[in-house]
Amino acid sequence: MEIEVLRIGQRLVRDDRVTTHVALVARAFGASKILMTEVNPEIRDTISGVNQTWGGDFKVEIIDGWRQALAEKKRDGYAVAHLSMYGEKIGDVQERMGAEERLLVVVGAEKVPREVYDEADYNVAAGSQPHSEVSALAVLLDRIQQGAQFERGFAGAKRRIVPSGSGKNVEQNC
Amino acid sequence: MEIEVLRIGQRLVRDDRVTTHVALVARAFGASKILMTEVNPEIRDTISGVNQTWGGDFKVEIIDGWRQALAEKKRDGYAVAHLSMYGEKIGDVQERMGAEERLLVVVGAEKVPREVYDEADYNVAAGSQPHSEVSALAVLLDRIQQGAQFERGFAGAKRRIVPSGSGKNVEQNC
Repeated sequence: MEIEVLRIGQRLVRDDRVTTHVALVARAFGASKILMTEVNPEIRDTISGVNQTWGGDFKVEIIDGWRQALAEKKRDGYAVAHLSMYGEKIGDVQERMGAEERLLVVVGAEKVPREVYDEADYNVAAGSQPHSEVSALAVLLDRIQQGAQFERGFAGAKRRIVPSGSGKNVEQNC
Repeated sequence: MEIEVLRIGQRLVRDDRVTTHVALVARAFGASKILMTEVNPEIRDTISGVNQTWGGDFKVEIIDGWRQALAEKKRDGYAVAHLSMYGEKIGDVQERMGAEERLLVVVGAEKVPREVYDEADYNVAAGSQPHSEVSALAVLLDRIQQGAQFERGFAGAKRRIVPSGSGKNVEQNC
């Protein structure tokens, strides 16, 4: 399954750290790329540093506008899942989403234009209370891949965690 | 099951928005309280505003220090789950955690003192790659309660979402 994330509506500076967390979650939970219109160079630096240490080639792609990006991805056969606390309960659609070959997950910041709801194949909620785009993305990716984040390889990693109940166990230069 | 969250190591200003998201996730996914040592008044205002609109009585409690809070909670019979990307795979312990009567989830920011690893009953990871304390908390709470966030009542809500695949459906003054 190929997963990409489209970040929309983020406000520069104010949302930078949250956007960084969205990007880190996308990477850690199996997406291959995050698309966004504007980006603080720090966000790219953080992700590129994480790739160098922890492996993989997760990409940050700068786009001209989300409308165009959404249309392109749909033409390329991506199903579109828009995360919203107003959406359907994730439990009701996760199986169908997990069976898609290509999925574009749209993650908004504040208000999301009506058009996004209309364009999406899934308007889906990780919870029906205000929470966070970071948590919503993680719960969605965790559920549709059934915890595959632990099994995924990150090629070229300098450090790799060996899960441990008592402390830090890290393999170097693996 | 009674769940509380202990936030440690957050840096004022720099981590404020992330800490707000941690608190919102705690509330939305069924914890009753978040404990922290320092707090930007904005965080309390945000949570209190969310309670007023969306219901429930999620609490932000200011503590003198995390060591003392941790010791007290242990005396009160809380099992301690420390979220860390170095921890055990969540799939290996979620059933055991879900069976606890009282659970204190410790959510760190940057470096977490060794002592926390030692004091915890569970050192548990939502993924073995760098991601976010917001996502880690959400995945943990989602898994150990098996999606109960959609079934929970929030008393006194002025607004309540009716999950919908196509847009926003909100009941007012319910």
